[in-house]
Amino acid sequence: MSNIKTLPFDYSKLKDIVRRYPTPFHIYDEKAIRENARGFNAAFAWAPGFRNCFAVKACPNPRIMKILAEENMGADCSSLPELILSEAIGLSGDEIFFSSNNTPLEEYRKAKQIEAIINLDDITHLDYLEQIGLPDSLSFRYNPGPAKAGNSIIGKPEEAKYGLTREQMFTAYSQALEKGVKRLGIHTMVASNELNADYFIETAALMLELIADITQKTGAAIEFVNFGGGIGIPYKPEDSPVDIQAVSRGIEKLYTEHILNKSLKAPSIYFECGRVITGPYGYLVTKAIHEKHTYKEYIGVDASMADLMRPAIYGAYHHITVMGKENAPAECSYDIVGSLCENNDKFAINRALPSIDTGDILVIHDTGAHGRAMGFNYNGKLRAGELLLRENGEVEEIRRRETLADYFSTLNYPGLKG
Amino acid sequence: MSNIKTLPFDYSKLKDIVRRYPTPFHIYDEKAIRENARGFNAAFAWAPGFRNCFAVKACPNPRIMKILAEENMGADCSSLPELILSEAIGLSGDEIFFSSNNTPLEEYRKAKQIEAIINLDDITHLDYLEQIGLPDSLSFRYNPGPAKAGNSIIGKPEEAKYGLTREQMFTAYSQALEKGVKRLGIHTMVASNELNADYFIETAALMLELIADITQKTGAAIEFVNFGGGIGIPYKPEDSPVDIQAVSRGIEKLYTEHILNKSLKAPSIYFECGRVITGPYGYLVTKAIHEKHTYKEYIGVDASMADLMRPAIYGAYHHITVMGKENAPAECSYDIVGSLCENNDKFAINRALPSIDTGDILVIHDTGAHGRAMGFNYNGKLRAGELLLRENGEVEEIRRRETLADYFSTLNYPGLKG
Repeated sequence: MSNIKTLPFDYSKLKDIVRRYPTPFHIYDEKAIRENARGFNAAFAWAPGFRNCFAVKACPNPRIMKILAEENMGADCSSLPELILSEAIGLSGDEIFFSSNNTPLEEYRKAKQIEAIINLDDITHLDYLEQIGLPDSLSFRYNPGPAKAGNSIIGKPEEAKYGLTREQMFTAYSQALEKGVKRLGIHTMVASNELNADYFIETAALMLELIADITQKTGAAIEFVNFGGGIGIPYKPEDSPVDIQAVSRGIEKLYTEHILNKSLKAPSIYFECGRVITGPYGYLVTKAIHEKHTYKEYIGVDASMADLMRPAIYGAYHHITVMGKENAPAECSYDIVGSLCENNDKFAINRALPSIDTGDILVIHDTGAHGRAMGFNYNGKLRAGELLLRENGEVEEIRRRETLADYFSTLNYPGLKG
Repeated sequence: MSNIKTLPFDYSKLKDIVRRYPTPFHIYDEKAIRENARGFNAAFAWAPGFRNCFAVKACPNPRIMKILAEENMGADCSSLPELILSEAIGLSGDEIFFSSNNTPLEEYRKAKQIEAIINLDDITHLDYLEQIGLPDSLSFRYNPGPAKAGNSIIGKPEEAKYGLTREQMFTAYSQALEKGVKRLGIHTMVASNELNADYFIETAALMLELIADITQKTGAAIEFVNFGGGIGIPYKPEDSPVDIQAVSRGIEKLYTEHILNKSLKAPSIYFECGRVITGPYGYLVTKAIHEKHTYKEYIGVDASMADLMRPAIYGAYHHITVMGKENAPAECSYDIVGSLCENNDKFAINRALPSIDTGDILVIHDTGAHGRAMGFNYNGKLRAGELLLRENGEVEEIRRRETLADYFSTLNYPGLKG
């Protein structure tokens, strides 16, 4: 029974939805997203100027972003389209954190225009950005290098392309002050999908100590600190979610010790979490269209890795519920496969599940982050659309599925209009 | 000097192209593609009814497909959009091999309409396809299971989702005959990017022996055999290309032994190669926009893994030429990186290259297959376009780059029209 993950709809409700919107589709649970966002913010009620800037890359849908904005979340952007999405939903200024790398000038120009906080990934970008004039506020991304072990997903910090070294940080703040930047912040991001709460507290310690050092060595007062994102979610039923309250308490203690007790200027606290905000509240709904019995048992579904890449490229686990068979014994072992001519197009391998019949509806869990966002068109696959299950129970299509016309749109060839 | 790969343009010519079409873009060499296709066909001049059906997934651009059709190649399709592309360039009937898996009925319907050869991936699809009436011609995909070692990329055949077991093959041909199918073929595909010529000869042996067995046990005359694709290309300068002549001679010997000497009906020979046909003749052209010196030396370019996924997801090697510095000593060690917030967005890691300056043009080799085709929009990245370097030296845009409007096209949100 511990093997059951909850769903925001029952089979009957889902069948109604599928009649109106054919599978496959992602569906997001507005109520759960709002409650989760409120809980996240509440956990940091003590923190001055607290804001989570939702990592747009996780779920770049303006309806979802707007819901999060209504729950006092901002946006963490890494590209021009993400900045434009953030602007479209009404965010501006400090609500938008522009944290990119290897950034082209046109993207800085847009970030500056909407007064997003620009977070520089490299010391050379200070001069690069100066070509269009430095903004009043600036932040720098710290790469702790060998001073911090990365986690298995993001890799060792000293092998990561991101951020400035410790020595460069001091130089950067000195130069930024010289160049007249009025408001300075600091950022790091050293984990991805990490479930160990202590990891985030350790990262905060590193950053808060560094703030004291920077102020001492350069005279810069750090007005905001972005601890990054990387908070994982329990993809497997046996995983435990990160205790956000514990993370918050740990950081509060460090903040008191390193900032308040030293009478340093008290920086606002930002995060840029994406996965932990929407990940568990999205579901890829797909239909079993074939069963196959060869050297193994296969169930073919109408979704594919084009709709959810994580199992194929990371070997990631995504829980699967067979609707109407939630309490049936998991007596079969299946590979659940899509239709790409790629043998890694499998949502699950050797997964214990109830006996599945053609026509059964399968729900693939935890697709609310890095799901639709990572899809591609390889093998001519058209990406699925996105639905929103609203708080009042209504269903709204918030992204249509791709059509043949979309697939052919960049071509200009006779007869190819879809 | 062995570290140099040839290019179909010099720096001066490429600078002209870049002035007209800003980086990044893929560019394909028509002359080399035609010569290569002719050479491939010539190597199999002995083979009855020989045809390579180009694997559309490798480079689903109708201009490239049309060039290959002019060189007597057909199309290997795995989805409805690929069937439509093949139809648009004028292919029909036996020129199109529809080799998909977990196939929805609507795709079979289209394949049947254009009289493509339908290759069934599973025995259950015989009944499934019968819903719309079986076509006159049918093929079945064989999965040799433990009888054949896969290669490292495609994995072990018995763990692959594709094809029928040996026992199922006999049943399938008997049933197809009973159901009145008039013309039967056979297919397998057990390798990907394999450089060992013997591997393809061994696969042919397996298939030709199986044909004799099938004919003996079921009475079915096999009229065509598709040996699949999977012929690799020398991504690394020190790799050797597959000797297609040797593969052909090896198969000819086996064909004589297993078919002609046994007085079996002589099947036509098909392949479905993609990579070896266009892979080496495509180039991703990108500009160095940043250099970064932290724990390692980085060059940031204006292309990203959105334009070429193979290095990021397979750790694949793609050779890089720094234009204008072809003969300069490779005295630096760089990570060549794109701008995604994914640390695997690196075209090369610790690559020995000449000293690179911002503004330098880099050519990433061997992107003519599984390059643009695999791109995604993660992080809001817009995919590059495709150019054709024609035989007369002119450059033609054969796919425009994506725009903001493309990125927002599946949304219906106020203010988001690009």
